[in-house]
Amino acid sequence: MFACTGYAAQTAQTPLAPFSFERRDPGPNDIRIDILYCGVCHSDIHTARGEWGNKDFPVVPGHEIVGRVVEVGSGVSRFKAGDLAGVGCMVDSCQHCPSCKEGLEQYCEDGGFTGTYASPDKKTPGLFTYGGYSKSIVVDQNFVLRVPENLELAAVAPLLCAGITTYSPLRHWKVGPGQKVGIVGLGGLGHMGLKIAHAMGAEVTLFTTSPNKAEDAKRLGAHHVVISKDADQMASQARQFDFILDCVSANHDINAYLALLKRDGTLVQVGAPSDPLAVNAFSIIFPRRNFAGSLIGGIPETQEMLDFCAEHNIVSDIEVINIDQINEAYERVISSDVKYRFVIDMASLAA
Amino acid sequence: MFACTGYAAQTAQTPLAPFSFERRDPGPNDIRIDILYCGVCHSDIHTARGEWGNKDFPVVPGHEIVGRVVEVGSGVSRFKAGDLAGVGCMVDSCQHCPSCKEGLEQYCEDGGFTGTYASPDKKTPGLFTYGGYSKSIVVDQNFVLRVPENLELAAVAPLLCAGITTYSPLRHWKVGPGQKVGIVGLGGLGHMGLKIAHAMGAEVTLFTTSPNKAEDAKRLGAHHVVISKDADQMASQARQFDFILDCVSANHDINAYLALLKRDGTLVQVGAPSDPLAVNAFSIIFPRRNFAGSLIGGIPETQEMLDFCAEHNIVSDIEVINIDQINEAYERVISSDVKYRFVIDMASLAA
Repeated sequence: MFACTGYAAQTAQTPLAPFSFERRDPGPNDIRIDILYCGVCHSDIHTARGEWGNKDFPVVPGHEIVGRVVEVGSGVSRFKAGDLAGVGCMVDSCQHCPSCKEGLEQYCEDGGFTGTYASPDKKTPGLFTYGGYSKSIVVDQNFVLRVPENLELAAVAPLLCAGITTYSPLRHWKVGPGQKVGIVGLGGLGHMGLKIAHAMGAEVTLFTTSPNKAEDAKRLGAHHVVISKDADQMASQARQFDFILDCVSANHDINAYLALLKRDGTLVQVGAPSDPLAVNAFSIIFPRRNFAGSLIGGIPETQEMLDFCAEHNIVSDIEVINIDQINEAYERVISSDVKYRFVIDMASLAA
Repeated sequence: MFACTGYAAQTAQTPLAPFSFERRDPGPNDIRIDILYCGVCHSDIHTARGEWGNKDFPVVPGHEIVGRVVEVGSGVSRFKAGDLAGVGCMVDSCQHCPSCKEGLEQYCEDGGFTGTYASPDKKTPGLFTYGGYSKSIVVDQNFVLRVPENLELAAVAPLLCAGITTYSPLRHWKVGPGQKVGIVGLGGLGHMGLKIAHAMGAEVTLFTTSPNKAEDAKRLGAHHVVISKDADQMASQARQFDFILDCVSANHDINAYLALLKRDGTLVQVGAPSDPLAVNAFSIIFPRRNFAGSLIGGIPETQEMLDFCAEHNIVSDIEVINIDQINEAYERVISSDVKYRFVIDMASLAA
C-alpha cells in the first residue's frame, strides 16, 4: 500500500474536502497512473451526496481520468512509464462472462463491473474504490486506455464518460451519412453527442428548450436547432428521424420525441430522469418505433472512441478548475451553468 | 352499388343491431367476397363504442374475415369466383410511399391505411368503410389474402388480425431456435403468440396472472409458465429472455418484464393499455434493452403468416357464435371470458 491524497465526501451531507488514504501497490497486471486531469460528471454529485442509494463513505468521486503512467506490473506490456493513459467509469469486471468476453464489460453478467469509485473493490476485498479526484490511481491494465497525443489533454478527460456514453449508442445503432439524427439536450452529454454524430456524417438536429443555445449548438456540430417548447416546430419534425439520442436527465415528455422517429427509428435514452418515462403504447406501436437505453461503453469501444476523436480532432468543451473549487463547481453543474464540462487540474491538489 | 346487410352500432351508446346499407360494385381491381366467418376483436368493441375517439356512425365492425370470392374485376388474375379469400385490418393504402412499396401498408406514410371499418373510404369518397359483420364485402385485390384449404375455416378468421399482430413482431425480430421467448398474457393475441413462437422453434414461456391458465398455456405451446404475481418466480427469470411479446391491454408494470430481458433483448408491446407505460430509465439503460411496438403486419407478411400457419397446422382456438349473440359476446370479451376468440358464423345473418 502507498499513501495517496484526494478530495472526498465524508458523508452524504458534507462537502468535498481534502482526504488522505491508501491505495494498493501495483500487482503484475496493474498500472499506476499519476492523475493530471479529472472531469466532473453529474454522477459524481449523485454519488457524493448518496442520491443513488450508496451508503459507503467516504466517497472520492471522479471517473474521467487522464494521467501519465509512472509504474507498470511485470505482466504489463502495452504501457510503460511516461505514457499517457486514461481511465473511465470502470476499473474491473469478471472478464469471463459473455458480455465481458464481447468487450462489453459495462454489462458484466457476473456481479457487474467495478465502478471507478464507490464500488466494492474485488482486488482489495473489504474496501471501496476511490476515484479520480486524487493524485494517483492503480488500475488493472485491461481497464486502462491509450490517450492520443494530439489532443488537448484536459479536454480529453470528459471523453472517458460523456464521450463514450454518446459514442457507444451512435455506433451501436450505426449512425452515419444519409441519416437524420436528433440530439436532445445541450449539456455535458449532448454537446459530445453533437460533435460525434456530426463527425459520423449524419445530418444532426439539436432539440433544446433554450433558444439562446442555438448558436452554440451550430458551432458544436448541429445542422439544425429545434426549440422543443415550440409545438409548431416540433410538429414539423414528425416522423423525420432515423435516430434520436436523449441526453436529458430532467423529467420530460418522451412521447414528444418518439413522435419524431420514422418507422423503425430508435430513440436511445442516456440521460436518467428520476421519474419513469411515460410511453404511450401508440407512440411505439405506430409506426414500429424503438425506445432503448445504453450505458457508457465497453473498453474496446472506449479505445475506438478515443481513436475516433483523435482522428476527427474532437474533445470536450471544458472549464478548468482547481480542486478547491469543486464544491462551487457542483452547484454550477446542478444549475447547468457550465459549457460544457468542468475538469479539475489535479496539479492544484497538494501532495 | 348493391344492397348488403350486416350488424351495426348506430351510435356509441347503442348495441349492435341489424343494418342495411350499400356497397360499391366491384371495379376492375376489386374482389367481391361472400363472408363466411368473421372474428371478434377487442378493437371492434372499442370502435363500436367510440372509445378510440371515432365519431362517425353507424359502425359495422369486423376485420377478421374469411369468405368465398363471388366476383372479380377485369384486372384481377390472382383470384376467381369460388376461391377462398381473407381480409384483415386494411382494405386500402396509398400504394406509393416507401412503407407501402416495402409491403408495410400498415405504416403507410401518405394518409395512413384505410381500415376495414370506420375509416374514410378512398374508393367511395364521403363514405366510411363497413367491416365484416356483414353478408359480403368488396375489396381491392391488393388487400385480399389467399386462404389455405387445409385449415378449419372459421378458426382461420382470427389469424387475419390476432395472428398477424403476433406473427409480424416475432418474425421482424427474428425469433427462432435457441432463443428464449416470453409471451405476456393469454388471450386472443397471447394464445396466437404461443402457437406461432413455438412453431418458430423458440423456447416459449407464458407469463400470466392466472395460475388456472397454466395447463391450457402448455397445450397451446408454452414450454414454461410463470405466474407474474409471484415475485420469486419473476425474480428467477431476470435477464433470461431474448424477446418478449407483451399482449396485455390492461395497465401493468412494464419494468417487471423489461427486467427479464437479456442485454440487447427486445420487448414488443402489441397490447395497448390506456395509461402510458411507465419505463424506468435504468430498466432500458442497463443492460441496453429495447422497448418497441408493432402494429398488425403488411399484406405480403400476412400472406406469409397464413402460409406458415397452413404448413404448421395453426389456427385460432375459437368459440363460434351466431350474429344475434354479438352483444353478449362483447360483454364476455370484456371480462376475458372466451377461449380465445369469438367467430361469427355469418350464415346466421338473415339475407
